[in-house]
Amino acid sequence: MHQQATVVDGLQISNWSRPVLEELRTGGVSAVNATCAVWENAAETIRSIAQWLELANRNDDLFFLATSGADIERAKEQNKIAVFLGFQNTSPFEDDYRYVELFHRLGVRIAQLTYNNQNLLGGGCFEAEDSGLTRYGRVVVSEMNRVGMLIDLSHVGYRTSREAIEASTVPVAITHSNPLWFFDTPRNKPHDVIQPLVDRGGVIGCCLYPTVSGGEHMTIESFAGMVARMVDQYGPSHVGLGSDCTRGWDHEFVGWLRNGRWQPTAPENSPRWPAWPNWFTGPEDFPRLTEGLVAAGLTDGTIAAVLGGNFSRLFAEVMDTTKEKANV
Amino acid sequence: MHQQATVVDGLQISNWSRPVLEELRTGGVSAVNATCAVWENAAETIRSIAQWLELANRNDDLFFLATSGADIERAKEQNKIAVFLGFQNTSPFEDDYRYVELFHRLGVRIAQLTYNNQNLLGGGCFEAEDSGLTRYGRVVVSEMNRVGMLIDLSHVGYRTSREAIEASTVPVAITHSNPLWFFDTPRNKPHDVIQPLVDRGGVIGCCLYPTVSGGEHMTIESFAGMVARMVDQYGPSHVGLGSDCTRGWDHEFVGWLRNGRWQPTAPENSPRWPAWPNWFTGPEDFPRLTEGLVAAGLTDGTIAAVLGGNFSRLFAEVMDTTKEKANV
Repeated sequence: MHQQATVVDGLQISNWSRPVLEELRTGGVSAVNATCAVWENAAETIRSIAQWLELANRNDDLFFLATSGADIERAKEQNKIAVFLGFQNTSPFEDDYRYVELFHRLGVRIAQLTYNNQNLLGGGCFEAEDSGLTRYGRVVVSEMNRVGMLIDLSHVGYRTSREAIEASTVPVAITHSNPLWFFDTPRNKPHDVIQPLVDRGGVIGCCLYPTVSGGEHMTIESFAGMVARMVDQYGPSHVGLGSDCTRGWDHEFVGWLRNGRWQPTAPENSPRWPAWPNWFTGPEDFPRLTEGLVAAGLTDGTIAAVLGGNFSRLFAEVMDTTKEKANV
Repeated sequence: MHQQATVVDGLQISNWSRPVLEELRTGGVSAVNATCAVWENAAETIRSIAQWLELANRNDDLFFLATSGADIERAKEQNKIAVFLGFQNTSPFEDDYRYVELFHRLGVRIAQLTYNNQNLLGGGCFEAEDSGLTRYGRVVVSEMNRVGMLIDLSHVGYRTSREAIEASTVPVAITHSNPLWFFDTPRNKPHDVIQPLVDRGGVIGCCLYPTVSGGEHMTIESFAGMVARMVDQYGPSHVGLGSDCTRGWDHEFVGWLRNGRWQPTAPENSPRWPAWPNWFTGPEDFPRLTEGLVAAGLTDGTIAAVLGGNFSRLFAEVMDTTKEKANV
C-alpha cells in the first residue's frame, strides 16, 4: 500500500527550477510546501511570486500552484506536483494585516509566524527571550484562520508557539522540526509544544535537515525509530515529514538564511551547507526513507499517514473549509 | 425597457467609501471600472488593493470585487455593484511583464496603457511626440490578452492607440473619452483611432468629465446628441459611457493626477476640480442622463446597449473567454 501512498513534503526551500522539481517527481512526491519568502518584504515577495507564475506557466506538465488540500490528490492522479507557496517568515505582511488576504489571493497558503528572530508577530526560536504572540500576532493569526492560510511554527519560539496554538481556531503545523529529545537545538520542539499542537489536531513534520537531525552520520534506523516513537507517543494522525531540502543553491544562500539584512555577513556567521546522510540527499530518496519506515515496523496505514495523509488532511481542513469565509 | 437596463460606468476615480459607493446604487449603476492606480508602483499598488479588500469585506452587502463579465448581471440581480479594479497607468507593472498575471490574480481586470505621459509601454496623450507601442508594450499587450485583462486607451496617444488596437488579439476599450469633434483636447479621439477600435469590436465610453466634454455649461442635449451621432456613425454596439466621476476627493488630488512625482507641483499646475454641469454631478444622475438619451430619440435597445450592454459584452469577451488560457 505504501508504494501507492501520497507523499507530501512539509517544507523545501530549494532554488526552484525544472530539474529540481523533477527530483520531486522522481521521488514520488505529490505535494510540497515551497518557501517563497524568508526575510523579504512585500515588494520583494511579489517579485518572488511573479517568478513562480512564470515557472508554473512554463512547466505546467510538471507542476501547478496548489490552493486547496484537494489539489494534492489531483496532482497525484495527474502525475504532477502540487506546489503550495509558503512563507518562512511573516515579513511579507509587513505591518499590514490586510496583506494576509492579499497574499492568499496570490496563492500563498502557508506562513511560518517567525523565522529564528523576534518579529512583529512574536518570538523566534533563537531569541534568548520569547515575547509571546504580540498584539499584531493575534490579529494575523485570526486573519490567517479567516482566509484559510496554514500557520507554521517550525522556527518559532516555544512560548509564541504555544500561544499561537491556543489562539488559532483551526489546527496548526510544525512543518519541519523534530522533538527536542532527538536532537537538542532550539529549532526542535519540547513535548509541551508538540502535545498542545496534537491536542488541537495539528501535524508535526519530522525533519531531515542535518542541523536538526544530527548531521551526515544520522542513520535511517535512528530517524525511522524517532518517527515510530512519535507515532507511539502522539498517535498515527499527527506525524508527517518535512525534508527541508535546499536543492540548487550555492553556499552564499546559507548566509542569506542566517543573516538576512539584520546583521552583517561575516566569516563566523557564513557557514557552508551541511552534509546530508548518504541515505537521504534529496527528494529522490523518499522511497528509501519509506523503506526505513517499513523496517521500523510501522503499519502500511501509518506509513501512508506519515508520508502524506496527515498533511493532506490538515491542508484540507485549514484551506478548504475556511476559504469560503473569505471574500475571495 | 431602459429603466431596467444594466448600467456599467466605464470609469470612475473616486475616493472610495461606503457613501460614495451608495451613490452608484442610487444611480442604478451595476458595475464600474474603479481606478486603483495612476502613478503608483507595484508596492504602492498592493497597498491600494489591500484597502479595497478591506472595503469589500466590510461592505459585502453593497458591492463585490468583480472578476468576470458575468459578474455584472449577478450584481444587478443582487442589487449590488460589481467593482472592477482598474489601472489608469501601467506603472504598477514596472518593468516586469509577469506583474500582469500577478495583478490579474489580485483582481485587476482593466489597465490603461499610459496616463498622459510617455511610459515604458508607449506614448501618452499629452506628449508632443508619440513613440508608438514599445517593445515592452507589445509584450504587455500580449500578456494582457493571455490572462484576460482589458486594454484601455483613454489617456493614450493616438499612434500608440492605433498600434495597440492592431497588436491586441481581442477587442479593446476607450473607457472615458469623447470624439475629437465634440471637444478639442488630446484626451479625445480622432476618427482614425475610433474606427479601427470599432472595426475590431471595441467600445468607447463617452465621458462626462468637464475638461473633455466642455465644462459646466455643456447641455444634456449636446451630450446626448453626441452619443446619438456616435451611434449613427459607429453603430449601436460600440458606444458606452464612462463618467470619470471623481467623488470624495479634495483639490489636492488633482495635483497628484496632474503631476504625480514626475514634475514639481506648482501653482500653475495645481488646478482645482472643474465644475460639472448641473444635470450630471455624480453617479446619482445616471437616470437623468438616460432621460436625455430618450429625448435624443435613441431606441430602447440602443439605450440599453449604451448604458451597459456594450461594456458588458466587451468585458465578458475579454475577461471570461481568455482567462482559461492563463494558469489562474
